[in-house]
Amino acid sequence: MSTIKPDNFVLFGDICYSESLKTLRCVEGGFLVCENGRSAGVYGSLPEEYASFPQINHAGKLILPGLVDLHMHAPQFAFRGLGMDFELLDWLESYAFPEEAKYSDTDYARAAYTSLVRHMINGPNTRFCLYATVHVPAALLLMDLLEESGLVCMAGKVNMDRNCPDYLREKSAPRSAEDTRLWLERSAGRYKNVSPILTPRFVPACSDGLMKELALLQKEFRLPVQSHLSESLAEIEWVKQLCPSCRSYAEAYEQYGLFGGEHPSVMAHCVWAGDDEIELIYRNNTYVAHCPQSNMNLSSGIAPMRRFLNRGVKAGLGSDIAGGCHSSIFRAMSDAIQASKLRFRYVKPHEAPLTVNEAFYLGTLGGGSFFGKAGSFETGYEFDALVIDDSTIAAPFPLSAEERLARVIYLSDDRHILQKFVRGRCVKE
Amino acid sequence: MSTIKPDNFVLFGDICYSESLKTLRCVEGGFLVCENGRSAGVYGSLPEEYASFPQINHAGKLILPGLVDLHMHAPQFAFRGLGMDFELLDWLESYAFPEEAKYSDTDYARAAYTSLVRHMINGPNTRFCLYATVHVPAALLLMDLLEESGLVCMAGKVNMDRNCPDYLREKSAPRSAEDTRLWLERSAGRYKNVSPILTPRFVPACSDGLMKELALLQKEFRLPVQSHLSESLAEIEWVKQLCPSCRSYAEAYEQYGLFGGEHPSVMAHCVWAGDDEIELIYRNNTYVAHCPQSNMNLSSGIAPMRRFLNRGVKAGLGSDIAGGCHSSIFRAMSDAIQASKLRFRYVKPHEAPLTVNEAFYLGTLGGGSFFGKAGSFETGYEFDALVIDDSTIAAPFPLSAEERLARVIYLSDDRHILQKFVRGRCVKE
Repeated sequence: MSTIKPDNFVLFGDICYSESLKTLRCVEGGFLVCENGRSAGVYGSLPEEYASFPQINHAGKLILPGLVDLHMHAPQFAFRGLGMDFELLDWLESYAFPEEAKYSDTDYARAAYTSLVRHMINGPNTRFCLYATVHVPAALLLMDLLEESGLVCMAGKVNMDRNCPDYLREKSAPRSAEDTRLWLERSAGRYKNVSPILTPRFVPACSDGLMKELALLQKEFRLPVQSHLSESLAEIEWVKQLCPSCRSYAEAYEQYGLFGGEHPSVMAHCVWAGDDEIELIYRNNTYVAHCPQSNMNLSSGIAPMRRFLNRGVKAGLGSDIAGGCHSSIFRAMSDAIQASKLRFRYVKPHEAPLTVNEAFYLGTLGGGSFFGKAGSFETGYEFDALVIDDSTIAAPFPLSAEERLARVIYLSDDRHILQKFVRGRCVKE
Repeated sequence: MSTIKPDNFVLFGDICYSESLKTLRCVEGGFLVCENGRSAGVYGSLPEEYASFPQINHAGKLILPGLVDLHMHAPQFAFRGLGMDFELLDWLESYAFPEEAKYSDTDYARAAYTSLVRHMINGPNTRFCLYATVHVPAALLLMDLLEESGLVCMAGKVNMDRNCPDYLREKSAPRSAEDTRLWLERSAGRYKNVSPILTPRFVPACSDGLMKELALLQKEFRLPVQSHLSESLAEIEWVKQLCPSCRSYAEAYEQYGLFGGEHPSVMAHCVWAGDDEIELIYRNNTYVAHCPQSNMNLSSGIAPMRRFLNRGVKAGLGSDIAGGCHSSIFRAMSDAIQASKLRFRYVKPHEAPLTVNEAFYLGTLGGGSFFGKAGSFETGYEFDALVIDDSTIAAPFPLSAEERLARVIYLSDDRHILQKFVRGRCVKE
C-alpha cells in the first residue's frame, strides 16, 4: 500500500481515455489531477490552482483509466484453464458446481479467495462485479478480503434452489431468501468500497418462488442485480421449457422486476439476444456484460455487440472467470475485437467489427458507468488510474500514445503496471 | 548460456508429450534422458545404462517438448499489435510493406532483429520457420543472429516482383533469382542450426517468371518452400484473376513444383481451402501452418482444421507475427481451440472443435515433424525441452500433469519457463 496521500495529487505522463464510444482523447505529456479522490481534469499545462499539489512524474509512461470487469465468478478462479473441452451445461456439472461446493468450508474459501484477491490487485482491473457462492460466511469473507484490497467491487451471494446438484442447492425459496437477508444485514454499513449485488444465478437454477422473494429483497434493500442471459443455445431451450409463458429469456427476469428499470441490472453474455430481447434490454437500461473469451471457450457463440451499440444499449466487458481463463480486461478487449471480426466474417457481414478504440471504451467507460462516474478521466470521475511502463514492448520507431495504447491492449501483462490507483488511492506499486 | 554439457544428461520431473494426435503421454516423476542431443526415452525409473549421466532435478516441474512456430515474419515483430483495425491487403499496404522496406538498412535490421531474437529466446518456442525481407544482407544478418541464439530455424529471403510498392519490389524475376542465389551461396555451410527455405511471398506478389526461376533454384539447392495459401477471400479472388488457368490457389504453386512433393513445403493459413485444395495439399505432403490469431485479427476466417486432420493432412501452428500479435505457440494452441469452437458453432456443426490435447500436438509434434524428428520425447527425437515452473498458477487442490499442462497452455507466460533446451543445449535459464 502506498504512502501517497489519496486526496490531492497530480500524475504527469501520456494520458489516454475514452470520452465516448467514438472518441478517444490522448494528451501526451499531460497532467491528470486527482482532487479528493476524483479527477479534476486532464491538462496540457497544469492550471495554477493545482500547482501546490504533489506531482508524480511518469514521463514517457502511459496513464489510463482502471479497467472494469462486469462479470466474474470468484470461486471459479481456482480452476481457470480446466475443463475447456466442455460446453456450458456439462462444464457447470463437471467443474463449476463441485468446486463451488467447497466454499461451505470457510478455511478453504479463505485460502482460495486470498489467492484470487492477490491476483486481482496485481492486474489492470480496478472495479468488479463478482459472484460468490450460495454460502453466506464465504460471501462475507470474500467481501472482507476485497475491502482490504482497496478495489471497488459489487459482490453477490449466489441464489439457486433448483436444477443443480443437491450438495449445492438451497433447500427452499424462503430459506434462500432468509440467507440472503442475513448476508445483506451482515454486510450493511461494513464496507467503503464493496457493496452487495443481488445474484440469482440464472433462470434454470431459480424457481419462480425464489425470484419473487428476491424481488422483495431488491426493493427493500434497493439493490442492483446481476445474472446470466441467453448464453448458450441449450440453455435458452431449457429456459423456454421452464418458462413457457415468457416470450424471451429476458422476460423471465423482467416479469419479477429483476431486469433493470428502477434498479440497475447487468446481464452476462446475451450471445443469442434477438430483436425483442435487445429492445427489452434497451428499454430497461440493463447492462450487457460481454464475455467474449468465455463465449469462445464454452462454444457459446459471439454476442451481437455492434447491434447493442447501435441500439444504444449500455455495455461493458467481463472476464467471466472461469468460463474465461484470463482476468485482465485488456485481454477481454482484444478477445472482443477478434470475436467481432469472426462474427462479421461468418454471421453478419453488415455488422462492422469492433475497433480497438471501441473495445477500450467498453472495458473502461462502458462498464465503468455501471458504478456511476467511473472509467474515464473527465472532471468529476472517480480517480481509478493505471500507470503503464510499456518500454519493454519495444518498437524501433516512435509511436503515438494511441498506438502505444493498442499495443498495451494486445501485448501487456501485469509486469507493465507500475502503479494502480482506485478512488485516488494507490493499491499497487 | 548454460554450463550443462549438451551431450548426455537426465531431466527429472513431470513429463508430458504427444505420441500422436490422439495420444498424450504423461509420466509424473519421470526421467527424460538426453543422449548426444537426442531423447533416449522417458522412464518411470531410470535404466541402469543412464545411471552415470548427470541428473537435473526438476521435481514438481513440468517438462514439455519445445514448441514449433511454423510461420512468422521476422521484420513484422517491430509493429505487432498495430493496425489491427485493417484486413489483410490494406494491412500489408499500410503497415507490413512500409516497415519491411526499412530492412534495406542493415543497422536498422540489426537493432530490430536483435530485439526479436532476444524475445524468441525468452519464449517457449524452440523451432521456427521465418520470413525475412527481400534484402540479402538483412536476411543473412537475421540468420547469423538466430544461429547465435541456439534456436533451430528455417529462414527465407523473401521473393516478390509484382503487386507491391516500388520501394520493396524486386526489379525483375532474374534479378530476384540472382539475389536469391547470392543469399543461398553466402549462407551455405555457415550454420549448424539455421537453414535456408525458399520464400516466394505469395502468388499475387510473384510473377510466373519468378516462380519458374525459383523452381530451378529449389531443385539445384534442394530447398524446402514456405508461402501463403488461401488466407482471405479478397486475396483468393485476386489470385483467380492473376491465374485464370488454375483451378485453385494451390495449383498456382503446384504448376511450378513449388507445392511439396519431393521438396517439403509449408503453406500458411489455408483458411478457405475447399475439397480440391485439401486433396492437393494431402497428396503433396504439404504442411498447413495454422495461424488462428492472425486469421482473427485480419478478419480472414477460421481454417478447417478438423477436415485437415481427418484427411491426414500434416499440420502445425504459426504465430504469423505480426498478423498475429503473440509469438508464443501456447497462445496459438488456445487460439486454435477457441477459433475451432466458433467454427463448430457457426460454420460446420459436424466438425468437432479441437481438444486441448490436439492443439498441444499441433504446436509440438505436428509442426515439429516439418523439421524431422522434433516435437516429441520419443526415443531418437532431437532434444528440445521446456522446464516449466507452474507453481504460481495456483490451485488450492491437487492437479494431474495433464490438467497442469492445460493450465500452462492457457495461462503461462515466459516467466514460467525455467529452462529451455534445443538439441540438447540449454538456451535459456
